[in-house]
Amino acid sequence: MQMDATWSQRLKEIEQSRAFQGFVIAVIVIAALAVGAKTYRLPAWLEQSIGLLDVAITLFFLIEISIRFLSAEQKARFFHNGWNLFDTLIVLASLVPLPDSEMVVIGRLLRVLRVLRLVSIVPELRFLINALLKAIPKMGYIALLMFIIFYIFAAIGSIFFADIDEFLWGDIAISMLTLFRVATFEDWTDVMYDTMAVYPLSWIYYLVFIFLTTFIFLNMMVGVILEIMTNETRKEDHQQQEDHHTELLQQLAMLQQQVTQLNQRLTQQQDTAGKAGEG
Amino acid sequence: MQMDATWSQRLKEIEQSRAFQGFVIAVIVIAALAVGAKTYRLPAWLEQSIGLLDVAITLFFLIEISIRFLSAEQKARFFHNGWNLFDTLIVLASLVPLPDSEMVVIGRLLRVLRVLRLVSIVPELRFLINALLKAIPKMGYIALLMFIIFYIFAAIGSIFFADIDEFLWGDIAISMLTLFRVATFEDWTDVMYDTMAVYPLSWIYYLVFIFLTTFIFLNMMVGVILEIMTNETRKEDHQQQEDHHTELLQQLAMLQQQVTQLNQRLTQQQDTAGKAGEG
Amino acid sequence: MQMDATWSQRLKEIEQSRAFQGFVIAVIVIAALAVGAKTYRLPAWLEQSIGLLDVAITLFFLIEISIRFLSAEQKARFFHNGWNLFDTLIVLASLVPLPDSEMVVIGRLLRVLRVLRLVSIVPELRFLINALLKAIPKMGYIALLMFIIFYIFAAIGSIFFADIDEFLWGDIAISMLTLFRVATFEDWTDVMYDTMAVYPLSWIYYLVFIFLTTFIFLNMMVGVILEIMTNETRKEDHQQQEDHHTELLQQLAMLQQQVTQLNQRLTQQQDTAGKAGEG
Amino acid sequence: MQMDATWSQRLKEIEQSRAFQGFVIAVIVIAALAVGAKTYRLPAWLEQSIGLLDVAITLFFLIEISIRFLSAEQKARFFHNGWNLFDTLIVLASLVPLPDSEMVVIGRLLRVLRVLRLVSIVPELRFLINALLKAIPKMGYIALLMFIIFYIFAAIGSIFFADIDEFLWGDIAISMLTLFRVATFEDWTDVMYDTMAVYPLSWIYYLVFIFLTTFIFLNMMVGVILEIMTNETRKEDHQQQEDHHTELLQQLAMLQQQVTQLNQRLTQQQDTAGKAGEG
Repeated sequence: MQMDATWSQRLKEIEQSRAFQGFVIAVIVIAALAVGAKTYRLPAWLEQSIGLLDVAITLFFLIEISIRFLSAEQKARFFHNGWNLFDTLIVLASLVPLPDSEMVVIGRLLRVLRVLRLVSIVPELRFLINALLKAIPKMGYIALLMFIIFYIFAAIGSIFFADIDEFLWGDIAISMLTLFRVATFEDWTDVMYDTMAVYPLSWIYYLVFIFLTTFIFLNMMVGVILEIMTNETRKEDHQQQEDHHTELLQQLAMLQQQVTQLNQRLTQQQDTAGKAGEG
Repeated sequence: MQMDATWSQRLKEIEQSRAFQGFVIAVIVIAALAVGAKTYRLPAWLEQSIGLLDVAITLFFLIEISIRFLSAEQKARFFHNGWNLFDTLIVLASLVPLPDSEMVVIGRLLRVLRVLRLVSIVPELRFLINALLKAIPKMGYIALLMFIIFYIFAAIGSIFFADIDEFLWGDIAISMLTLFRVATFEDWTDVMYDTMAVYPLSWIYYLVFIFLTTFIFLNMMVGVILEIMTNETRKEDHQQQEDHHTELLQQLAMLQQQVTQLNQRLTQQQDTAGKAGEG
Repeated sequence: MQMDATWSQRLKEIEQSRAFQGFVIAVIVIAALAVGAKTYRLPAWLEQSIGLLDVAITLFFLIEISIRFLSAEQKARFFHNGWNLFDTLIVLASLVPLPDSEMVVIGRLLRVLRVLRLVSIVPELRFLINALLKAIPKMGYIALLMFIIFYIFAAIGSIFFADIDEFLWGDIAISMLTLFRVATFEDWTDVMYDTMAVYPLSWIYYLVFIFLTTFIFLNMMVGVILEIMTNETRKEDHQQQEDHHTELLQQLAMLQQQVTQLNQRLTQQQDTAGKAGEG
Repeated sequence: MQMDATWSQRLKEIEQSRAFQGFVIAVIVIAALAVGAKTYRLPAWLEQSIGLLDVAITLFFLIEISIRFLSAEQKARFFHNGWNLFDTLIVLASLVPLPDSEMVVIGRLLRVLRVLRLVSIVPELRFLINALLKAIPKMGYIALLMFIIFYIFAAIGSIFFADIDEFLWGDIAISMLTLFRVATFEDWTDVMYDTMAVYPLSWIYYLVFIFLTTFIFLNMMVGVILEIMTNETRKEDHQQQEDHHTELLQQLAMLQQQVTQLNQRLTQQQDTAGKAGEG
């Protein structure tokens, strides 16, 4: 049992050592380069070397995640951490045998996703991702509102413009894609000039759509971002003010106590003086 | 009378229950999907099912708005609420019979607008819309300034460039649309190169226009948004500071009162002592 | 003399009345519409009506500016105000006779600029313009930095790419225009693909340029805007804090004085008691 | 030695005089214009004049940097300043003889870079550059995250789309350039429509990529900028609050000391009174 603990501790030390982390990062970068290299036409010997490297990297990641699992103190809670689950899934995915030639593409995709492991290893990137994930729920309703606007305009667009350009306005899904194109200002005037040839007033449709989406996008995005930013800094500011305020109040309370004491003393003195006077 | 009140109360309970709201949202989403489905070429039996669903949804909304109207405590004030008015109009609009075949399009448009009911039912979306509506008046004068700039540049553009490209600069309205295109950077160099062939210095016109609109847009948009954001948070901050300050002043006032009391006591004591000394 | 003063006062009252301002705004809008209408092909009678309206408007503005000049208390300072100068110049410009047919265009341009008078009449627009003018000097050095970057990249561009596309990179001025196009992302890949055919690494040039301009633009624009915003609000905040602090210090000083008095009294009492004891 | 000091002092005075700085700026602007002029086809005599001016400017800069070096108090630390190093390198670079005709281009490039000396001379530009350089490290990890996203999407893109368009998706490097084009919204729908012809669902790839990059870009850029801005202003604010708080605490401590003294006096008095009473 004790040996186990030492073993687990040693593994943890290895895992958290800078050298080990640097080595893992190096392996991930090599894996990424290997993935990139596959998109070039390479000589046979290099393809084979990359194939071998690929197996080595897969093995390495398997060992690395095993070390981390073994060095964890509470095995059951290991997968409660989203990052551990994320790493394990990526490693397991690359272990699945894909014999069918059709499946080769999926194998390559899984290898590409291993680059994502960089994110789980570099702490600053983890922090960034966590911050981004925290910002998503706040934007959920804005996204819903945007979707409703896109849906309504897409429905209107496909009702009126489907006969003009089947490719752009054929059904509601295609229309939404076309509207997204308009929202990115990508050759949107070409789309507009086509429909204006049939409905000369259809520029109103495009302008209202652009104003609406731009307005909501700007107003909300900046709003949400500012809210997150200022809330965090303001909480600290308020805490500082609250601390200062509490300290001042305590000092004042102590002073009041002292003055009250003085008052009591004076009362006693007066009483004594009174008695002395009487006496 | 009492029975009425119970009835009204029961309706209100139904209306505000989560199950009822979830059901209404589900119906709206189905209605939206039905609208979307109409833009695809569907088999006859599906078209008929959607037609039936459409009637069912129209009826459902009629009943739902009636329930809400009946459950309202003050019938007269029901339409003072913009959201109630908005819902009622959308429901009534889908009840209007449109026999003429030409009117089919309008009927479909009205059905599309029913998707907007999602906004009035989901409270978070209502909140978003209210926030957006509040931001509009602040932007009114910026919009006016923008319009004046567009108008002046469109007038100049149509005076000089109308002979070069009738389609882009034919009259002041078309010129404004072309300038909006330039402001979105959409193939604006094509427009510029055409006019530069005749007036080699016309790039000045485009650059001044782009700088002016971008500058005003950025400066103002961010300005207005920041103003709204900071004003709200700053009001809270100021309130907190003001509360703290008031509390400190009250404590100090109490302390001063105590010291004043002490002073008076001492005076009394001195007087007594003086008298005792005299006596 | 006194009659003059009354006259001047009455003019000022007229000028500042809401009815008069509304009327002036209406005339400017009509003038703007007249300018816009000229870009359409109109029947002869309408052209003539607009011609008459034009003369009427010119006269009206002449009278209006005269009224304002006469109602000014200090004639000499009238033109120290930028807005008065601006209005007078626009009015005088439309009075200049332009007999030559070539000059007709200039006449129309001057009439277009009269729309700018809206800005000088609506107080909210004046406020906006003043705020914008205040933001310009802060951006002067950013603009200079941008210009230097554009100049250097344009020089490099014209050295390397002039032989590839004379139209886009012919000389340093044309290159700067092309770079502005690249900075607005307008068909910038077409420009890049052309030069990449000769210099395959020229994408570095475009990416560095885009990153540099975007980075500076974003960083600076937001920086300057935030600076203006926060400085103004922070000054107020600091003033409030300073006021609170001063008030607290005054209260404490008063308290200290009271306690000092108490102390002195006690000393007196002790002395008296001492003397009484001695006596 | 003393003569040296006077000499050095006189040089420093010259260097820091406004006239000298104005003269240097004028020379740099002339040098910039000379570089610009070379991109135009000029008559022979003008080319020669510019050639002479070029030699003069090179000499001038050599003398100027020598003056600065000589006027520096500690010669060894002269190059510890990044700006001095920057200036010296630019001057030395233009002194390197480039006899080979192939090298002419490099010579012209070096001359272009001399425009950068404007930045080192105008203090406001130096301040801007320093501020920008300070913002870079904060963006390092965002850039890394962006690069990872680009890399993964480029790998996926080149796996699936390489056969559709070799020019856009041939290898991972080309794919990253294509994705940068998509991220700038530059004719991105053309890229998408091409791949949608083979993979009808490939719009998901583009939309996810656009949302991801836009979301990260917006969230992070604004976040980092706000952080820099607010941190600096907040530090000042906190300092002010801390100063106020310390001052208040000191005043309260003094007050407490006074009251304690009073208390002690009263005890003494009581004791004296007690003894007197006893006596």
